[in-house]
Amino acid sequence: LPELPHGYNFRPVEKSDYSNLYIETLKVLTTVGDISAENFDEVYNHWLSLPDIYKPHVITNAEGVVVATGMLLVEKKVIHLCGKVGHIEDIAVANTEQGKNLGRAMITRLTDIAKTIGCYKVILDCSPHNVGFYEKCGYSKAGLEMCTRF
Amino acid sequence: LPELPHGYNFRPVEKSDYSNLYIETLKVLTTVGDISAENFDEVYNHWLSLPDIYKPHVITNAEGVVVATGMLLVEKKVIHLCGKVGHIEDIAVANTEQGKNLGRAMITRLTDIAKTIGCYKVILDCSPHNVGFYEKCGYSKAGLEMCTRF
Ligand SMILES: CC(=O)N[C@@H]1[C@@H](O)[C@H](O)[C@@H](COP(=O)(O)O)O[C@@H]1O
Ligand SMILES: CC(=O)N[C@@H]1[C@@H](O)[C@H](O)[C@@H](COP(=O)(O)O)O[C@@H]1O
Repeated sequence: LPELPHGYNFRPVEKSDYSNLYIETLKVLTTVGDISAENFDEVYNHWLSLPDIYKPHVITNAEGVVVATGMLLVEKKVIHLCGKVGHIEDIAVANTEQGKNLGRAMITRLTDIAKTIGCYKVILDCSPHNVGFYEKCGYSKAGLEMCTRF
Repeated sequence: LPELPHGYNFRPVEKSDYSNLYIETLKVLTTVGDISAENFDEVYNHWLSLPDIYKPHVITNAEGVVVATGMLLVEKKVIHLCGKVGHIEDIAVANTEQGKNLGRAMITRLTDIAKTIGCYKVILDCSPHNVGFYEKCGYSKAGLEMCTRF
């Protein structure tokens, strides 16, 4: 696994990350909205109650502040001898921390967890301009993402 | 929602579908392998214990036999005001039942469930030659699927 900068740490999301720039970091990725501590706690507790399914992680900097986010979601299937698929979601790196390979560090660590728990594959969806980045992380183009919004 | 042929039924997967061509139908999609009743029960019980997350469905024909499969997996996120995303997975239609719009019936019904429970979007991954089919189901191209296999 590619090393993290000195003092940086990869770890599961903690409840206290709400006031540790977790939400702000996600805003780099997409629309987040005003999330109250109660809103966050509800999702956090849901994730925590399903540890085999939701594996939310962060990278913190030398000051212990969240600078990158990433989720590994584990899906149990019947296909592939009742195999498991890892879904990587919500990868975000704080704008001030770009160029430190934190995205690659996050992806490779989540992928390693998926391998360790026995997933037969890991998939993720990205925009065309991120394909090169994910290829450097060991991923290949597999198909097209289709979407409908409400 | 597009109607089903007379006598056909859309419903959640049942335990007894193991001996009702559920596994055989999935084999149209990809590698399944030899799944014992015990293997199936384990996955089925896992799904059943997490009804807010796993919503596995089938379409049965006039004889009550499984002729199509489809999973709606519901992911709880922090982004989009602690929104939910529906993932459509493992869509398969028995070869003998092609041309009856069962794929479209399955997709539109799973999408409708996702909308009803408040998902802000539904996504799925497919091969390029299925894009036209999913567009007819109301989906649009959104991104690229990247994959790594172990
Ligand atoms: C690998 C990765 O991080 N992919 C993310 C996905 O996880 C996230 O949920 C989505 C949000 O986009 P949205 O706001 O349009 O739903 O963006 C990207 O597809
Ligand atoms: C919309 C739909 O049904 N997509 C399926 C996906 O759900 C399934 O898990 C995968 C299996 O492929 P694999 O055997 O290569 O993992 O094929 C397709 O991408």
